[in-house]
Amino acid sequence: MTKPLLNPDILFPADPGTRKIARELYQQIKGLPLISPHGHTDPAWFAKNEPFPDPAQLLVVPDHYIFRMLYSQGVALEDLGVPSIDGSAVETDSEKIWQIFADHYYLFYGTPTRLWLDHSFSNLFGIDEPLNSDTAASYYQHISQCLARDDFLPRALYERFNLEVLATTQTPLDDLADHKTIAQSDWKGRVISAYRPDCVVDPDYEGFGENIEKLAAISGCDTSSWQGYLEAHRNRRAYFIALGATSTDHGHPSARTANLGASEATALFDMVLSKKASAEQRDLFRGQMLTEMAKMSIEDGLVMQLHPGSRRNHNNHIFERFGRDKGFDIPTRTDYAGALKPLLDALGNSRQLTLILFTLDETAYSRELAPLAGAYPALKLGPAWWFFDSAAGMKRYREQTTETAGFYNSVGFNDDTRAFPSIPARHDVARRVDCSFLAELVATHQLRLEEAQKLAVELTYSLAKKTYKL
Amino acid sequence: MTKPLLNPDILFPADPGTRKIARELYQQIKGLPLISPHGHTDPAWFAKNEPFPDPAQLLVVPDHYIFRMLYSQGVALEDLGVPSIDGSAVETDSEKIWQIFADHYYLFYGTPTRLWLDHSFSNLFGIDEPLNSDTAASYYQHISQCLARDDFLPRALYERFNLEVLATTQTPLDDLADHKTIAQSDWKGRVISAYRPDCVVDPDYEGFGENIEKLAAISGCDTSSWQGYLEAHRNRRAYFIALGATSTDHGHPSARTANLGASEATALFDMVLSKKASAEQRDLFRGQMLTEMAKMSIEDGLVMQLHPGSRRNHNNHIFERFGRDKGFDIPTRTDYAGALKPLLDALGNSRQLTLILFTLDETAYSRELAPLAGAYPALKLGPAWWFFDSAAGMKRYREQTTETAGFYNSVGFNDDTRAFPSIPARHDVARRVDCSFLAELVATHQLRLEEAQKLAVELTYSLAKKTYKL
Amino acid sequence: MTKPLLNPDILFPADPGTRKIARELYQQIKGLPLISPHGHTDPAWFAKNEPFPDPAQLLVVPDHYIFRMLYSQGVALEDLGVPSIDGSAVETDSEKIWQIFADHYYLFYGTPTRLWLDHSFSNLFGIDEPLNSDTAASYYQHISQCLARDDFLPRALYERFNLEVLATTQTPLDDLADHKTIAQSDWKGRVISAYRPDCVVDPDYEGFGENIEKLAAISGCDTSSWQGYLEAHRNRRAYFIALGATSTDHGHPSARTANLGASEATALFDMVLSKKASAEQRDLFRGQMLTEMAKMSIEDGLVMQLHPGSRRNHNNHIFERFGRDKGFDIPTRTDYAGALKPLLDALGNSRQLTLILFTLDETAYSRELAPLAGAYPALKLGPAWWFFDSAAGMKRYREQTTETAGFYNSVGFNDDTRAFPSIPARHDVARRVDCSFLAELVATHQLRLEEAQKLAVELTYSLAKKTYKL
Repeated sequence: MTKPLLNPDILFPADPGTRKIARELYQQIKGLPLISPHGHTDPAWFAKNEPFPDPAQLLVVPDHYIFRMLYSQGVALEDLGVPSIDGSAVETDSEKIWQIFADHYYLFYGTPTRLWLDHSFSNLFGIDEPLNSDTAASYYQHISQCLARDDFLPRALYERFNLEVLATTQTPLDDLADHKTIAQSDWKGRVISAYRPDCVVDPDYEGFGENIEKLAAISGCDTSSWQGYLEAHRNRRAYFIALGATSTDHGHPSARTANLGASEATALFDMVLSKKASAEQRDLFRGQMLTEMAKMSIEDGLVMQLHPGSRRNHNNHIFERFGRDKGFDIPTRTDYAGALKPLLDALGNSRQLTLILFTLDETAYSRELAPLAGAYPALKLGPAWWFFDSAAGMKRYREQTTETAGFYNSVGFNDDTRAFPSIPARHDVARRVDCSFLAELVATHQLRLEEAQKLAVELTYSLAKKTYKL
Repeated sequence: MTKPLLNPDILFPADPGTRKIARELYQQIKGLPLISPHGHTDPAWFAKNEPFPDPAQLLVVPDHYIFRMLYSQGVALEDLGVPSIDGSAVETDSEKIWQIFADHYYLFYGTPTRLWLDHSFSNLFGIDEPLNSDTAASYYQHISQCLARDDFLPRALYERFNLEVLATTQTPLDDLADHKTIAQSDWKGRVISAYRPDCVVDPDYEGFGENIEKLAAISGCDTSSWQGYLEAHRNRRAYFIALGATSTDHGHPSARTANLGASEATALFDMVLSKKASAEQRDLFRGQMLTEMAKMSIEDGLVMQLHPGSRRNHNNHIFERFGRDKGFDIPTRTDYAGALKPLLDALGNSRQLTLILFTLDETAYSRELAPLAGAYPALKLGPAWWFFDSAAGMKRYREQTTETAGFYNSVGFNDDTRAFPSIPARHDVARRVDCSFLAELVATHQLRLEEAQKLAVELTYSLAKKTYKL
Repeated sequence: MTKPLLNPDILFPADPGTRKIARELYQQIKGLPLISPHGHTDPAWFAKNEPFPDPAQLLVVPDHYIFRMLYSQGVALEDLGVPSIDGSAVETDSEKIWQIFADHYYLFYGTPTRLWLDHSFSNLFGIDEPLNSDTAASYYQHISQCLARDDFLPRALYERFNLEVLATTQTPLDDLADHKTIAQSDWKGRVISAYRPDCVVDPDYEGFGENIEKLAAISGCDTSSWQGYLEAHRNRRAYFIALGATSTDHGHPSARTANLGASEATALFDMVLSKKASAEQRDLFRGQMLTEMAKMSIEDGLVMQLHPGSRRNHNNHIFERFGRDKGFDIPTRTDYAGALKPLLDALGNSRQLTLILFTLDETAYSRELAPLAGAYPALKLGPAWWFFDSAAGMKRYREQTTETAGFYNSVGFNDDTRAFPSIPARHDVARRVDCSFLAELVATHQLRLEEAQKLAVELTYSLAKKTYKL
């Protein structure tokens, strides 16, 4: 335990003059509350406020960033305790899982996962020695002891993390019971949900037909008709809003939109519901629903988020044995300028609509996303996402979008995570990268220091709060 | 007025050693005359030499970089005085327009527009305090006073800017009266025009049919036949050349080229003229015309410029109300290797042809443009263009093309602007970025200092002069 | 001869602190043996061990990096002595060729070719003054004298270069006589070959039909049937393995794979052999053969390399007069996630298969290649390739792949060259770039120094040795 896991200058530019500016900017914003407008934590944690399970179940087993890297190097998911859906036996000894993870921790050198984990080990658990095969057992023991303490309960961590608001992501079929419990509790944490309708909007989603029936049940609307189906959405959106929601989220394969006339849309819905729709029609329906959601957003004020371009479940074998979200969602080329045109023709000039665009295809940053967001009032640029939620990825994002869209068409940071303990780490990385980017503009005299100071607050706090209406 | 708007080290690398080299390189080339081989200034300015209008009409209203950014943040184009084409009332009070612009000037932090404007404010108008809501009125007053002075007349500015040559962009239907006036005047400024035939080459251009008739009228050729139509081009090119032209310019949706046989080309032309051509045929015609223009270039020596990949007028609402060039031209993916092959098969090995390629799809830099320009004698690489005419964009351009095509297949800088006062600023940014790039190569011992000194002159002055035959 | 051609700090970061770390990392690995698992040197050099010809024939005439750059600037290939295939006369006076090359050496400023050549001039030939028109003759004389010496014979250079293993690339139709000679000699150099079956796998390859017959002759298998044809591959692979081969290499136009059933595959093979196959069927056959090769690799252990995305022989004129590999292979957009799926569905989860992916489309690094290689056990990332085998290109490679795939899914460096004297230069550039990249991670506290030290050895030596089973 000679030197701390995290250097206080981590991620700041190497040039001493620029580093000094970055450090100064960071000092002023590092203590600002965390705004988490988009993520995938479990609301039950905060509703029940029960202790987190052991280190492996908390940090390894649910984190596809981790287990897919080990899998890529020949470790079986079964040995990492990833739950199977086909009945295959998987490891249940969390200490064994933790040891395998520690044995392979060097695989993460140079990755953001390593930064997030070391940040948690250091700042959250107070550990000062690197994780490796030798320290695995002491890590396990120490973290286990922490997790048993009251100050490591979910609500205590929420407060310690200085979260101001935390958004989860739920489907329209969710009754938001946990969110209601939280809202009605005497705890002052603000845990809300985005409205994520993929399962009732995407005809290719598993169980789509049944989901439409469940939507009828939960909304009390007749979802067998186009108008009733739309009404069900309005109903559920209102329900989400009543429990604090300020946004929707859409995880489509592409950014395709459509804006059909009423009769065409009705006919398309009927076709989709009949399960006779072609692949093209199913895709068209997804596109039409983005425009319908945008129309509703103009009515009810929910901010839209569009996350396109992931080819889900690329690995058949893993999908069949372990199900979704197992590290095999692979990005694809994504068109925006053409795909969004129908929606933009209809609603792109509206000042009542906010549509935040994300990408897994970085070529779109400078070519399409910055030009679009730098022109249409309805469009904003979501932060660097998923695979690009790294120090280098965030830097590329700023370098390729700022010149055209400026800073004010961006919307602050999203941690986008299932890994609750990593939230402060992820925000800290983003804050450091943004301060470094600003520092480079100051050091090269493209920004004045006082402008950079103002921008650091915007990028860290104000833009997220304002854009997401939080 | 505490510190000057522009630091003398602006845009130089932050590392002190590298900065010192960049500064040294820059000192040697900063005073070289400006070669402006491609742009969109109004020749009437120099023909008439009348005072420029007020600050808003000069700097805000015509600049789509500026008003589209404000529009993206909810400011109406009407309030910025952008002229409507549908009769909508727009603001005419230039002081009000200027105030709105100043109120939103912070939106440009981190963008090249801010650098260009501050450069003009500082170097041209001698202003030392930042533009903001508070300083808007004094800015307006001061700039207005400047514009009324003789030393701010267009010809005086041309001289003060140290321009050696300035190319505008006119269509074959233009009689170049202003250029003739300038040439026949006793003023020694050199204002020439590129030959930009889009309006008589692109069947999708507004008024294409009428334009072909106008081409007949102005050329005295029978444009109802393929051969007559080609002859009309030869005629107009000769007319442009007689008034100093050295280049053509082609703003096509893609880089597609074709090389049809005579009878096929004739039939295609007839089909296009009959207005019965399909979208594919119209596109093929554009492609055929690029090859025809290249053939003529081999005869008459005009250097070709190809600017593909902009999806024009993406915003229907803005296009209908305000017309073209209102900030809604969005880049698209652009293929070069396949698209240019017909032209290259025919003429790519010619040492008599120079075809300068530009792109709005930066992915083409390393994948297609540098490999093509680094091999075909007829091809050269145009500089970073439009959205990429930023410090970061120019750096990416050099980093991604030099390794394969070297420096000598690039052609110097284009300011490409309608904003005359920004011309020195734009060239200065390019010179600083190129000197910084060279300095980094020197600092990492990839170039000797004396090589970098020679290259700095080439990139600033000689390559443009030589390639554009100026 | 005032200062040496190569500064000892070449390519290290300009920031003094980071440079110091890079230098320290480099000191520890610069002396490690060279592993060259992929390249195009001529095995006859090492079998015969005769002196290399003159400087022009050794360094200029066979190097398409060099002559295509001169060609792009108007120098005729004939004047550079590039052998014609159509009987055109070409220059045979090597001193004249060398002089033209020297006259144009400035074209390479900023390119990797310049670094490689200066490295060879300095380290191999001991020259200290820059090459230019004036020094051309003395260069020629000095290098000629060197080449006549025993310590410049191929085997002596192999040893001086500290090569541990050198792989060439031969087709299944090659009898590997030179490799056999080397293996049976008393020389201890290890020169092996990759198995490159393009000429008997790609129906569009010149002479494909005859090649299939030659394959029958050399393998003793009946290649007129699908099963016999596959058996012939197994036979030839075994032959290559017996002479040391550890890998195959596949230079396909795309990364398309297929996995047909036995009867479909048989029918496709028959169709291809009949020369009646459509372009689509020929492409499907190439895709099927990648999967067949992968199946054989699982049996016999050969590591697969896939080099897709080059549009070969883009310049018709040059191809007809001079043939293949004359600098006109232009990269194309390349899809991986979709193209590889059939092979990955079948074999991607195998720990027995290693498929190394290369690209000429850098957009795939972060979007597809790193996500795929960071998840599938069978996939690894080949190093920056061909046009991207530059300092800047290698840096982009690390920056865009490490965040997602880490270092351990990469495979070390390939020199991939026909230019034997450039091998130490190319490895040295890669070692310096990797040490610089690691140094930046250390300087920004993303890696500890001891981790970077370990990684420097992996990237330089161990990963190549392990992945290629050398």
